[in-house]
Amino acid sequence: MGGDFGPRCIVPACISFLKSHPAVKLVLVGEVGLIRPCLDSYRFDSSRLHVQTASQVVGMAEKPSRALRGKSDSSMKVALDLVAGGQADACVSAGNTGALMAFARQTLRMLPGIERPAMYTLLPVSNGQCVLLDLGANLDCTAQHLYQFAHLGAAVAAAHGVVAPRVCLLNVGTEDVKGVLAVQQAAELLKASTINYAGFVEGDGVFRGEADVVVCDGFVGNVLLKSSEGLITMLLRELEAGRLGSNFFRMLAQPLLSQLKDEVRPDKRNGAGFLGLHGVVVKSHGNADGAGFQSALARAVTAVENDLMGRMAQQLISLQGGSAHQV
Amino acid sequence: MGGDFGPRCIVPACISFLKSHPAVKLVLVGEVGLIRPCLDSYRFDSSRLHVQTASQVVGMAEKPSRALRGKSDSSMKVALDLVAGGQADACVSAGNTGALMAFARQTLRMLPGIERPAMYTLLPVSNGQCVLLDLGANLDCTAQHLYQFAHLGAAVAAAHGVVAPRVCLLNVGTEDVKGVLAVQQAAELLKASTINYAGFVEGDGVFRGEADVVVCDGFVGNVLLKSSEGLITMLLRELEAGRLGSNFFRMLAQPLLSQLKDEVRPDKRNGAGFLGLHGVVVKSHGNADGAGFQSALARAVTAVENDLMGRMAQQLISLQGGSAHQV
Repeated sequence: MGGDFGPRCIVPACISFLKSHPAVKLVLVGEVGLIRPCLDSYRFDSSRLHVQTASQVVGMAEKPSRALRGKSDSSMKVALDLVAGGQADACVSAGNTGALMAFARQTLRMLPGIERPAMYTLLPVSNGQCVLLDLGANLDCTAQHLYQFAHLGAAVAAAHGVVAPRVCLLNVGTEDVKGVLAVQQAAELLKASTINYAGFVEGDGVFRGEADVVVCDGFVGNVLLKSSEGLITMLLRELEAGRLGSNFFRMLAQPLLSQLKDEVRPDKRNGAGFLGLHGVVVKSHGNADGAGFQSALARAVTAVENDLMGRMAQQLISLQGGSAHQV
Repeated sequence: MGGDFGPRCIVPACISFLKSHPAVKLVLVGEVGLIRPCLDSYRFDSSRLHVQTASQVVGMAEKPSRALRGKSDSSMKVALDLVAGGQADACVSAGNTGALMAFARQTLRMLPGIERPAMYTLLPVSNGQCVLLDLGANLDCTAQHLYQFAHLGAAVAAAHGVVAPRVCLLNVGTEDVKGVLAVQQAAELLKASTINYAGFVEGDGVFRGEADVVVCDGFVGNVLLKSSEGLITMLLRELEAGRLGSNFFRMLAQPLLSQLKDEVRPDKRNGAGFLGLHGVVVKSHGNADGAGFQSALARAVTAVENDLMGRMAQQLISLQGGSAHQV
């Protein structure tokens, strides 16, 4: 029900996704009266697509605390209940991020030692990718929160196959005195932990590939991710429109631009995973189109198929076992 | 004396700059024993290049409060004194940002109603550019600080010729409830002001050109700017190295890439201006190379030649005259 476009975007994306992922079954949770009409014009295997009624919708501008109190039959809450009850393996939502986090925290249990779920993505950087977290689930973070995110990030990087991932705190400089108090205190906590802490990283260092895990509060991470996506989209558009470079050179470069677009365009990477919960929850951008929403669905499927949460929880336990401070 | 490379990078950059800017005179402030040897291998017009002794250097990792107390004969402070005393029109530094701000605030007077200097740059966005501030001079900002930065940003955009610049607060969503308290409170202040306040903007919206002025705290602005620069540098390198796209397409695209690099590469845009002071102060990236430092020098020269500060102060007075809350 969520996102900027609701069922009219999400339903067709789900139909397409079923075709390209024959092992997957989907449950569409929300107002049947709005979802059914969107399904009418498609042919699909009804054994693989089920509609689950939920009478309420959390608004995109609704306060999470308010949603938590009054929206227990919202599409978001019902979808998470399906995961908690084992009827679904993952929940994907394009809805209100804060409400999704609040409901997820309430419905799915938190991993030991973790107070708040964090959102992460794999950001493409020089010679690889890095785990970036938080992306907006937690706007105000204490040093302890950042410390916990570092453990979540290190665990998920390890679960993705990175050996002793280099964990950095995002900051405005690399010298010890730089940054705000929470970041400085988190650095002290990390120095005394079993994490492979690699110091502060700046915005440019992130893309130079200086870290395998980049830890920051959700406000900063959200701005970093969205501005990067916006910048790539702008560059591709400017190049295509011929506003950068001459027409002749642009014509020669057209095939490269098309390839580039396929490789780096943001909707191909849409979908931020929640960490710290018993269960797979993926948040799609509110403004994602159908292709973008399918990327978020694919991210959830990959996480389930690879038992990412199980392997991550194992990694987390081993990191926590050796860390001096409470995680 | 500052930056990652000191005089051995800055001195040759200054020599080159004198050649390309025949109307400019430069004063190099710092330890004569370190600067003179860097000059030895160059021929230059000594009436246009003067070395001014300063016995101290502010370290890149030094706390600003400490520098302010103990480094009254630092290169940074002496250079600012030259501007305050009218012997120089502008100060350009690649040194410690926090110390530069603290000394600038102490040495050059603040504009009326402005508590702290802010750093800004002109960011290239779709169909133009936008003023982005703060970039790292103020990491912890109250609503009142953000409100003042909005006035500074609107005034400098107007001084650059933008009529009724659209001022936005950078946030993680565009809905009223989104974001941290300081940002929400700043929005309320701006709604009641004479500023052409255009609401919240997200990171992607910045590059879509949704705002003429983007206001945020220095931590977030620093991350946005540096990560954008890092991303562009990465994309250009990956394209050049042929890791994106095929070799054949890449060969065809080579001329476009060279042009693109010239148009968007970060060092061409190096140099963040301080706002809110009586005087032109430009901060060069600590890691800028010679070409980058020359861009910062050029930015200072343009500001002086166009009387940017004078025109900005006029604009600020007219904005403040009509705003309900104290600026």
